[in-house]
Amino acid sequence: MGKRKLETCFSPALYEKDQHSGSIVVIIDILRATSAICTAFENGALSLIPVSEISEAMEYKNKGYLVAAERDGYVLDFADFGNSPFNFTREKVEGKTIVYSTTNGTGIINMASSAGKIVIGSFLNITALTKWLISEESDVVLFCAGWKNRFNLEDTICAGAIAERLMKSDMFSTICDSTHASLDLWDLAKGDVQAYIQKVAQRTRLRNKGLDDCIEFCLTPDFSKKIPVIKNGILVDNIL
Amino acid sequence: MGKRKLETCFSPALYEKDQHSGSIVVIIDILRATSAICTAFENGALSLIPVSEISEAMEYKNKGYLVAAERDGYVLDFADFGNSPFNFTREKVEGKTIVYSTTNGTGIINMASSAGKIVIGSFLNITALTKWLISEESDVVLFCAGWKNRFNLEDTICAGAIAERLMKSDMFSTICDSTHASLDLWDLAKGDVQAYIQKVAQRTRLRNKGLDDCIEFCLTPDFSKKIPVIKNGILVDNIL
Repeated sequence: MGKRKLETCFSPALYEKDQHSGSIVVIIDILRATSAICTAFENGALSLIPVSEISEAMEYKNKGYLVAAERDGYVLDFADFGNSPFNFTREKVEGKTIVYSTTNGTGIINMASSAGKIVIGSFLNITALTKWLISEESDVVLFCAGWKNRFNLEDTICAGAIAERLMKSDMFSTICDSTHASLDLWDLAKGDVQAYIQKVAQRTRLRNKGLDDCIEFCLTPDFSKKIPVIKNGILVDNIL
Repeated sequence: MGKRKLETCFSPALYEKDQHSGSIVVIIDILRATSAICTAFENGALSLIPVSEISEAMEYKNKGYLVAAERDGYVLDFADFGNSPFNFTREKVEGKTIVYSTTNGTGIINMASSAGKIVIGSFLNITALTKWLISEESDVVLFCAGWKNRFNLEDTICAGAIAERLMKSDMFSTICDSTHASLDLWDLAKGDVQAYIQKVAQRTRLRNKGLDDCIEFCLTPDFSKKIPVIKNGILVDNIL
């Protein structure tokens, strides 16, 4: 059997929708969306409903759902909490369905909808995720969410960390320059990820809003063994 | 005076047209377009007219112009030569206006047309280019042409090499993750650029067509002191 294909995409603006039917697409947005999602499921959330419009989130709130909703880092006043992973505590989320308001996320999920499977990746679930990816028979696309369509370093090094494990398994090959770049940048970063991340723009954005308290946590490997997966547009507990 | 802004764009799909009025945009497409352009001017070409349609290139040919025209690496039969820098010898180009057929290039030039100035960058003119960029008063955008809108490593490390010199001048600052990534990848590559470039996808593409003979040349610093610049949609000799 030939090796499976590993590709990396640095931004929604670079995603080639028609190229990945049958592949597993891993969405990576570690500061903070995909880290928050992994935390929610680790703490017992049943499912997450991503919605793009604030009005939609409000409707769900009126029906009694828990709602996580932010714009530009600020919690919307009708919401139960914002998008920091620290909000998704077991006390709050266990056994619950949470409505998750996101400007970027629903677009990305729609974009990836022609893929075979869409799962959520972060440092928090990296070992469980990569073991599962290796055990499957599919090509893999690491889809960095970026920020306003821009390349970002934090998702790139997480993609590199995932790619390193997949390439070491000897089950994958890559002819994708983005994957090579991710691997090289991860190799530079991995000795001291906290130090490396000092220069990323998103860190500055979060710090300016006092929202950078979760960065160290978001860089912690293996807080969770969950692999959140999208089924019919909704995130559910675990693919396993 | 505050420092000038340095940004890097990894693909035409990521270029933010409205963000860069007044900036100097450096187009980088080292395998092989911008290396070929620098070579043409170093060897005495008067100007280069980029055209997107093959029919347009043929019309110019019928009017007596020299025409460089390829599609997917193969020279079109009516053309005088293809896009390898080795074609643009002094014997052929000195004192001439050359029509240059390019699928990607004209789109990129149009995209960048709202910038203050658009110049051509490669390893071949890196010292002249960076000295001039430092001497100007403008923000700088390093615009990697990519390949079919994809990220590529060879343009990224060239952007990193240019960025390194600009940052060392202490005249620029950057909060752009793409610039940080370029700088880091260049730092990895610079000890042995030939070896680093082995893994890039474009190298494989060129090799498969027997067109990789120019790669070593395209990685040579300072073959030329020219800084080709776009004026009214046409490339002319030198900005200085």
